[in-house]
Amino acid sequence: MDEIFEKTLLFDFYGELLTEKQKKIYELYHLDDLSLSEISEQMDISRQGVFDTLKRCHNQLQNFEDKLLLVKHFLFTKSRLEEICETIHEFKNSGIDNNVPSVQYIEKIETITKSILEDL
Amino acid sequence: MDEIFEKTLLFDFYGELLTEKQKKIYELYHLDDLSLSEISEQMDISRQGVFDTLKRCHNQLQNFEDKLLLVKHFLFTKSRLEEICETIHEFKNSGIDNNVPSVQYIEKIETITKSILEDL
Repeated sequence: MDEIFEKTLLFDFYGELLTEKQKKIYELYHLDDLSLSEISEQMDISRQGVFDTLKRCHNQLQNFEDKLLLVKHFLFTKSRLEEICETIHEFKNSGIDNNVPSVQYIEKIETITKSILEDL
Repeated sequence: MDEIFEKTLLFDFYGELLTEKQKKIYELYHLDDLSLSEISEQMDISRQGVFDTLKRCHNQLQNFEDKLLLVKHFLFTKSRLEEICETIHEFKNSGIDNNVPSVQYIEKIETITKSILEDL
């Protein structure tokens, strides 16, 4: 998995378990792309302090993932739901008459699948 | 939601974030249905100690849920996936010819949906 994507997911899932200060520093670095020195200045702590906080944040987030496996489950569920969407797409492109009664069932399933994906 | 069901779900999702001792006491009380006195004897701590630990566990689990909303999301996803299963069931009972080409798509969707439900 792409490292930036992984860090974003870990933060999405477990960010709320960090302190406000940790969250702020993690966001500034990983989401707003500020340098250690810029964060040091903005937060009025040493550059080493920023570095240590980031490392501690990452360890904590990874530790939550090792215990709860939310990101792993999320990625599995998402990919399988996307498979349902693909299957529905194949169905729609299969040349099956759009007026056959089964279409209404497929469309209902599509609506539900999309609502789950939006809520994930 | 049923209180026992809720406590079980909270423990399923966040139990790994408790200490080993907390987990043990929580399990003995809520899952194995032992009394405070029985746990007190088995764990060699006071009855009040057991009571306090259980209260602290519940607060911690609830605190994780307030922040991460895993149980809420789980219940939503599960109920929506069950809706997909119901829709497939309706389709199968609708009298639509089982040999129409759309059946293969529906069956593929059913397989995927069940695999997500098993992994939830």
